[in-house]
Amino acid sequence: MGQRSGVDTAFTPRTPRIVAARRLQRRRERDATGLFLAEGPQAVREALAVEGCVQELFGTGEAFARHAALTRAAGDRTSVVTEDGLAALAETVRPQGLVAVCRQLDVPLSVTLAKLPRLVAVLAGIRDPGNAGTVLRTADAAGAAAVVFAGEAVDPYNGKAVRASAGSLFHLDVVREPDSGRVLAALRDGGLRVFAADAYGEADLDDLADSGRLAAPTAWLFGSEAHGLPAEIVAIADARVRVPLHGRAESLNLAAAAAVCLYASARALRMKGTP
Amino acid sequence: MGQRSGVDTAFTPRTPRIVAARRLQRRRERDATGLFLAEGPQAVREALAVEGCVQELFGTGEAFARHAALTRAAGDRTSVVTEDGLAALAETVRPQGLVAVCRQLDVPLSVTLAKLPRLVAVLAGIRDPGNAGTVLRTADAAGAAAVVFAGEAVDPYNGKAVRASAGSLFHLDVVREPDSGRVLAALRDGGLRVFAADAYGEADLDDLADSGRLAAPTAWLFGSEAHGLPAEIVAIADARVRVPLHGRAESLNLAAAAAVCLYASARALRMKGTP
Repeated sequence: MGQRSGVDTAFTPRTPRIVAARRLQRRRERDATGLFLAEGPQAVREALAVEGCVQELFGTGEAFARHAALTRAAGDRTSVVTEDGLAALAETVRPQGLVAVCRQLDVPLSVTLAKLPRLVAVLAGIRDPGNAGTVLRTADAAGAAAVVFAGEAVDPYNGKAVRASAGSLFHLDVVREPDSGRVLAALRDGGLRVFAADAYGEADLDDLADSGRLAAPTAWLFGSEAHGLPAEIVAIADARVRVPLHGRAESLNLAAAAAVCLYASARALRMKGTP
Repeated sequence: MGQRSGVDTAFTPRTPRIVAARRLQRRRERDATGLFLAEGPQAVREALAVEGCVQELFGTGEAFARHAALTRAAGDRTSVVTEDGLAALAETVRPQGLVAVCRQLDVPLSVTLAKLPRLVAVLAGIRDPGNAGTVLRTADAAGAAAVVFAGEAVDPYNGKAVRASAGSLFHLDVVREPDSGRVLAALRDGGLRVFAADAYGEADLDDLADSGRLAAPTAWLFGSEAHGLPAEIVAIADARVRVPLHGRAESLNLAAAAAVCLYASARALRMKGTP
């Protein structure tokens, strides 16, 4: 088990490999290396389930003992760290003893489209990592095959996004494409209807569901709560769709709107539910 | 316009009325006085729309000038504060110049039930104020008549909850009832079906919608993400309902699950949407 021979050899915050791994908290370093950090047993378990994803698993001796199955699965990729060493790598106040260095997993949009997905979520220009991670988790739950980070979007490998995704980052295809127009063109070439979620959209989500138009392969576009979707993106969507507001709220937050839209599609597409 | 005669008389962090208002950041003080703070122009506008709610409106001279309609509506309840005075009252890094001292608005459950509500959300033991405020906003959007804070729940007047509600706290009935069992009994006596949202529920939300059982006055129970719903609550619900998980996510977060459940009800109840 690699470096696990004893507490004397446990890595500290000053050990070069910890210093190097810690740099992955910064986007620049993630972009340069193609690596990122996944924190806590849930994320580590999901990362280990993806062939070739986990490069190294840092953990306290106590955490390795507590999570024996994960430790076994990581095999000779484990390295014991001190509590201080773990705290240096972790971004949460209560890290749960494990941090993995992972290989970034995103695939080209063409790879995703070749699988003929029925449901795709596109995050266009979303900057908030917590929102992005939450939508990723919801998209996974609704049965989406992929989440596309389009335009000047947040880094899906940002620590907060990884944590908010609750493991879903490792479940579905993640695509990054800075050219939003190219994303839309490719999605439509791939046979998907493209609906833009827009508080001021001309189509009502319930009417769309009633009309049967949701019962076809669909890509949902979501923009930021503050700025909405870029006009040039909205212009080429098949429809701008609003979630109906029945009360007096001015809008829904992004995560709630995405949940309602993606689940309306899942229902229309008659995705198979949990037993 | 009360204290607004000039910058010389603007309140500072040490002015007794600012010191007193600032104490409302603490729950103990809110409970003792029946008051709370609402921050920013959106919340202030919604608070002013409720008769007798705003007791005093603190703002910088610049903010009062920028938000002339709000300033007029507040009339002689306005008090000019210095930037430091405002910063002392505000809980966000970028306060937008206005903080109102408001009277708490919650009503007894019997008052809400006398209005024969068709849709009610119950937050049972939810501790996270951001989650509570987000569900409040979503419940408002879905056309719920009331949100009940049951059991040992977060204070709905917590600053973070007020902000996350994005004004919806002022739109619908807020009820606080520490005895969750009493809440459920009263809801059922009031003719509402009670569905407990539960990741391990025996009823699938889509099946429930297909069966027509959602097309009746409904109360949804939501528990905390970490601890779920108390067993004694779940036991007396009409059904435990799970949002189907089509992908590999283990669960939805609370806000997403609440959005899907409440909007499924809104659709089944054929609430009137926005035009």
